[in-house]
Amino acid sequence: MRQIQAPLFQRGLLQDHAKCARFLSPLAERFFLITDETVNQLHAKQLFNGLKSQGLPVTPLSIPAGEASKTRAMKEKIEDALFAANALRYSMLIAMGGGVITDLVGFVASTYCRGTRLCLIPTTLLGMCDAALGGKTGVNVPEGKNRIGTFYPADLIWIDPEALSTLPKKHLQEGLVEMIKHALIADVEAFAFLEQHLEQILTLDPFYLDEAIKQSCAIKQKIVLEDPEEKGLRAALNFGHTVGHAMEEESHYTISHGQAVVQGLKVEARLSREYAGLPKNHVERIDQLIDRLGITTQHVDSKQIMPAMQRDKKNRQGHVHFVLLEAIGKIKHRPPFFTHALSLEQIEKGFK
Amino acid sequence: MRQIQAPLFQRGLLQDHAKCARFLSPLAERFFLITDETVNQLHAKQLFNGLKSQGLPVTPLSIPAGEASKTRAMKEKIEDALFAANALRYSMLIAMGGGVITDLVGFVASTYCRGTRLCLIPTTLLGMCDAALGGKTGVNVPEGKNRIGTFYPADLIWIDPEALSTLPKKHLQEGLVEMIKHALIADVEAFAFLEQHLEQILTLDPFYLDEAIKQSCAIKQKIVLEDPEEKGLRAALNFGHTVGHAMEEESHYTISHGQAVVQGLKVEARLSREYAGLPKNHVERIDQLIDRLGITTQHVDSKQIMPAMQRDKKNRQGHVHFVLLEAIGKIKHRPPFFTHALSLEQIEKGFK
Repeated sequence: MRQIQAPLFQRGLLQDHAKCARFLSPLAERFFLITDETVNQLHAKQLFNGLKSQGLPVTPLSIPAGEASKTRAMKEKIEDALFAANALRYSMLIAMGGGVITDLVGFVASTYCRGTRLCLIPTTLLGMCDAALGGKTGVNVPEGKNRIGTFYPADLIWIDPEALSTLPKKHLQEGLVEMIKHALIADVEAFAFLEQHLEQILTLDPFYLDEAIKQSCAIKQKIVLEDPEEKGLRAALNFGHTVGHAMEEESHYTISHGQAVVQGLKVEARLSREYAGLPKNHVERIDQLIDRLGITTQHVDSKQIMPAMQRDKKNRQGHVHFVLLEAIGKIKHRPPFFTHALSLEQIEKGFK
Repeated sequence: MRQIQAPLFQRGLLQDHAKCARFLSPLAERFFLITDETVNQLHAKQLFNGLKSQGLPVTPLSIPAGEASKTRAMKEKIEDALFAANALRYSMLIAMGGGVITDLVGFVASTYCRGTRLCLIPTTLLGMCDAALGGKTGVNVPEGKNRIGTFYPADLIWIDPEALSTLPKKHLQEGLVEMIKHALIADVEAFAFLEQHLEQILTLDPFYLDEAIKQSCAIKQKIVLEDPEEKGLRAALNFGHTVGHAMEEESHYTISHGQAVVQGLKVEARLSREYAGLPKNHVERIDQLIDRLGITTQHVDSKQIMPAMQRDKKNRQGHVHFVLLEAIGKIKHRPPFFTHALSLEQIEKGFK
């Protein structure tokens, strides 16, 4: 069975093509570098040329950028391109890009000839701290995000924060939303670090940025290693996402994941205050840190998003399940349950 | 991680709806019984009514019968039907039918919400002894069979040989081809049992049929438990299939899997004679047993099927790999390799 690997964190790695080729070459017979058109221009083309000049048998493949590419149809297109290029299970797919690319290519890798080798190179902050870690792959369907997918840990995950230098501010903010979530569910000190250094991180100060990424990766890595297939604890990573996902769906994805989760964190902090004893001043600290991100948000109407929440993947026996905090850095755990079923009335009360 | 489970062998199980419901009900919140239109008429409708009358929350779903259904498009159709019915990961898919249904529904189960519960009920001899065991799932693409799929062991596998009473003779023969293959690679006594009792098995004598199925399941089960993800030994199950699959592809599936593998076994027995020391009288015994199946075969032209063999999933570094026998019941194992790369010249020589 495939094991979850620790990511390799190394600033400057992607510029050192000889080193990259040395890591890769023993792992497969052929390599397919799959990216989106934006990342291709910014990073992947350069890496492709570098690997090729090192003699690595690598083929490039690029798809349109954006969430709209994360579909079963695009998966099929990539598969067909791989068949046309005679890729085999001893080939390695290298996914370079944001969460859309790493989730989609990871899914392709998990089912192509029942599983090829896989290397993930996240180029967004969200990818580095979240999407590329823990082995989840998937595509979206009209009924929801990531509804079709697999657990398929990558053989290699490379995190080079220099790739973030080209990242639009909006995407940095999105990454920070998940980093705040990681701190909230597991590490009060990581939360304090973000409180103290948010501005340095947003301006890509290497010292604080690297430290924050490492802290956030460590939290996620610890959780997914403990519960690789989301039987229990891993559900904690869904804090803020029960509401967040539902908002995204309800808006037909006109609002971003970050915008939705920011609101999700705030609402679910209030549900935590109501039903898990999260202290009032913790709710305030959460609000304050989130507000400093400068993400524009929208009003959430509980009635409007209820149908989408009722389709949530965590639901059981018709109940909507939430992750709740009892303090910053600590989720409410009622063994053996990591989530809490709330009734419609309870949810509406918490929204107020 | 999901473990490969032992199948439950019980003659008459599918008629005992109370027992079936008792097994199933603790395992999921909702159940989807997925079958093809032929099996629906013969078996599944009856099981569905039985389970429903036992109070099990089960929904039926039926797709067109035949290999043409084993596609990515049909997978998507089933997924969409499951979304429409609000199936969740805590649902169980029950696949009832031949290898097409168990492979396809297994694949759906492995990616729907990143993995639902799965029960397989093979209704063909091939399914009982081979397709439903070992966790392989998949669909076909124009480039080849089972090229997209997963390893996803079922939670339950039910084998009730009474389902075979409605099976056309052609399908019984197909199943016996794989049973002969299992005996060839691992168990000379199972081979002798088939030699002695082939006619009783073909006429569904319960004593000999049940014994042969159990022997064949035991061989496959032992191999897949030792090597669940086909890193080594499991390749042995491909004996006869390098040529067989290539013939099927080359014929655009106008010849059946059984017709192709029968020829594959004969050709690969000859390659084994040439390159692995399989004694001449063993080749003769293999030919004789196969011929008693009464499957009509076609001439194999090595040149014609070479391009398809060169796309074989086992291939490495441009070589076509074969499983070879050194005796009936024993594959040639050159540690750490279970397959043998043969050159085009060697292959052609063996064909003669």
